[in-house]
Order: sequence, then structure tokens, then C-alpha cells
Amino acid sequence: MKAPHQESVLSRAARILEAFSQDETALTVSEIARRTGLHVATASRLVGELVAHGFLSRDDDRRVRIGVRLWELVVRASPTLSLRDAAMPFMEGVHDVVGHHVQLAVLDGEEVLFLERLSAPHAVINYTRIAGRLPLHASSSGLVLLAHAPAALKERVLAGDLTAYTPATPATPAALRALLAEVRRQGHAYCPGYVHDDALGIAAPVRGADGTVTAALSVIVPNERCAQEIVPVVRTAARGVSRALGTPGTGTF
Amino acid sequence: MKAPHQESVLSRAARILEAFSQDETALTVSEIARRTGLHVATASRLVGELVAHGFLSRDDDRRVRIGVRLWELVVRASPTLSLRDAAMPFMEGVHDVVGHHVQLAVLDGEEVLFLERLSAPHAVINYTRIAGRLPLHASSSGLVLLAHAPAALKERVLAGDLTAYTPATPATPAALRALLAEVRRQGHAYCPGYVHDDALGIAAPVRGADGTVTAALSVIVPNERCAQEIVPVVRTAARGVSRALGTPGTGTF
Repeated sequence: MKAPHQESVLSRAARILEAFSQDETALTVSEIARRTGLHVATASRLVGELVAHGFLSRDDDRRVRIGVRLWELVVRASPTLSLRDAAMPFMEGVHDVVGHHVQLAVLDGEEVLFLERLSAPHAVINYTRIAGRLPLHASSSGLVLLAHAPAALKERVLAGDLTAYTPATPATPAALRALLAEVRRQGHAYCPGYVHDDALGIAAPVRGADGTVTAALSVIVPNERCAQEIVPVVRTAARGVSRALGTPGTGTF
Repeated sequence: MKAPHQESVLSRAARILEAFSQDETALTVSEIARRTGLHVATASRLVGELVAHGFLSRDDDRRVRIGVRLWELVVRASPTLSLRDAAMPFMEGVHDVVGHHVQLAVLDGEEVLFLERLSAPHAVINYTRIAGRLPLHASSSGLVLLAHAPAALKERVLAGDLTAYTPATPATPAALRALLAEVRRQGHAYCPGYVHDDALGIAAPVRGADGTVTAALSVIVPNERCAQEIVPVVRTAARGVSRALGTPGTGTF
């Protein structure tokens, strides 16, 4: 164990990278110091080192951003690039037909992590962002991923915080348990108004080469009754991605 | 200046991230040691630290990959996410009409860096990859970016290595200089067989809120005469992205 003042360079570098977000992609050194709890002098020196190695870059106005070089290194060898590449042609097809939002998500820890999103201008409200997260119990993608997750994770989520975002969110263990069983049985999740009253999510499982569920393909559309017609579109696309990934067999999901 | 054995942790971490590539997204510690020139013990210790902080992750089979946590931190605050978000609806439209490959690129150093690509199955050959690079003088995107680059960069590229990938590549300073002038005058680059005999690239400039060229939108299609018909499609989409980014004025590019 190290004392806080002996914290490793990599640990402090990770804290600096964590200080940036979708809404704040450029920060001054003093903002970085405030967010990370590092002394300004320490933050300044470390930012200088991170800039020198391309992890960060500095604007003309002295604000600091994630470096294009780091973006390149991380994205070109991304562990999810092949999944994304396999999914995009199918996602584009769904987006042509359905409009609004089409997304690809994976399970990470006890949350949904969104890898990709196609959005139309003036589409219905959607909290999903690329590289953003949502809770497993409330989103259609999360319910598909959780329905096929190991029992231990399911039990942890069932015993954890089940925030009700709307009156429709499955916010009790009993409601969530029943819904997960239904998602497995049906082969998709249909979620009217679970995250926001105006939006409806539909998600279907994507299986990898070993046959296990590795991702969820979903759409977010206005919360209207006729959305049931979209279910086969989402399911077909998810099967297409699974086939492109080499999923064995052609049985039902 | 530090002696090599005193190289900083961040410098060695950067070398480790650089060891991964699109073709090798998973490496063993000994492969990492070989590629970086680090001692196996040093590589092993540093990989352990990088795994602990989410920069890397370790598979069940002990191979190491870029960490999903690092991907998330870098992509969510990506300096190019707003450009990419503005471009995608237009790129999808072009992809619907043209098929093959549609791409978005920026200038980085003396190369083209590709931020995004939409590809159809069985599309024509294309060396572009997301987060991949191509030389400025040979690709349609590179020619657009170079045509609008500062004079100093133009002169460096003109004086540098102008590899001829095919007989059609502009591989002499005179040919390249004439082509850059034409690209500026026409407002787009039309590149039959410059990188590969079978492929033809068409690129147009994307301007940012300050009116300067910040990106190139391009298509790669089979190298056939009728490709001229695609030029207005690419130009219109690039203007649409520029408008979405808030480019002032509506004059010609």
C-alpha cells in the first residue's frame, strides 16, 4: 500500500483522464487540479508529461483535451472494433427504416456501455451517448444483457439500487425478475417509457462466435402503440450481426 | 534529459499502448516486451499496473488488450466526437446512395487520420480504417486537407517522400503542386486509382465554425468513368456537415 502522496503516476494519470467528460472535453490545468484533488503544481507537471506523450493535447487557449494520438491508439486496437464493424451495416439498415436512434451496447461491470449510436435529427429524447452508460434494470439494452448474464450478476442487480425513472420503470426485485424471464422467453426487450415517458426502447441480443450473448442491438423511438411493428426489424438485425460474428446454429434465440 | 533506463512511466506506458494494432488487438506480456524493447520483468510489472487502472485488460487466456475503461474515457471526451456526430447523418445519406465506403478524415501531423468509416459488404478494396492513417499526397481526403493546409506543411510534404502506389499517384512535386491547385479551384479531389488501381476516391472539404477546413468527407468507389456523377453527392454532404458545424456564410468553398 502506498500513502496518498506516493500514489503512482499511472493512478494520477487515470484520475486526470477521468476529469474529462462528454460535456467538458476541454479543461484548464486549474480545473483539472480541482476535479482530481491534485495540487496545481502536480497537475501542471503531470499534464505537461501527458501532453509530451500525446495522451493529452493543449489548445491555443491553454485548455487541455484528450490527445488525438491517444484516441488513435485506443480506437485502432479497440477490443470492440470487430463487434462494431460487424454491427454497423445492420444498424444502418435499421436506421434507414426506423429513424430515431439505433444503438449497440455491451455489459461492463454492472452497467450498460454504449459502443455506437446512429441518430436522426429531431429524433425522440434519448439519454444514450457513445461511450456513455445506463443502468441495467431500466434500459432495453440493459434488460437484454442482464437477462443473459450470469446468475450472480443478476442477483447483485436485483439486490441493488433499482431507481424508478418513470412510473413504468421495473423498480422492484419482483417486477425486474418477472421482466427478465419474459425477455429471455420472448427473445427481446420491449420497454415503453422505462427511462423517459416519451421514449420507448426495443432491444435484441447479439451473440458472438461462442454462442453467448455479447451485445444488445436496440432502437429508441417515440412511446407509441404502433412500435410493436418495429420488434421484428430489431430482432432480424441482431440475428444478422450474430451471424456475421459467426454464431453457431440457426435455432431461435 | 533522462538516460534510457530512467525513461518515465508514462513514456513506457505510451510504448506499450503503441504495441497494439488493428491486426493485433491482443498480445502476451512477452510479445509486448519484444515489441517495446522493455525487459520482460519491467513489461510484466507495468502491464500489471496498467491493468489495475483500466488502461489494459487481461483475457482469460492471459493475453492483454486495450481496456474498455480506457476506451470509454478517451471516446466519451474525444476531441473529434462533435465533428463525428455532425457528420454521421450526412455520411449515412451518402452511404445509402453510393454504397461502398464513406469516410471522415482529419489532418494529423503530416498524415490523414480517419475518424469514421461506413462500409458496405463486398465494397471495393479500401486501405482506410477507423483510426488508421494514409499519406496526404495519395488519398483524396489527404489532397483536400493538404490543399487547404498552411503553406509550410505543403512545402514539407512536397519536399518529402511521395511514394507512387500506382502509376496514377501524383508522385512528383510538380504533379502534386498542380493537383493541389486544381483541388482548391474545383472544391473537391477526384482521384482515380491513386492508392489502388481498382479504387477511386472523391473528397470534399468540411469547414468548422471558424470557416477553416477541419476535415474531409470522402467516398471510395470502383475506378470507373461514371464515378463523376458522385461528385455532387459528396460536395453536398460536405457542405451539409459544414453548415451543421456552424460555418459562416454560404459562399462557394
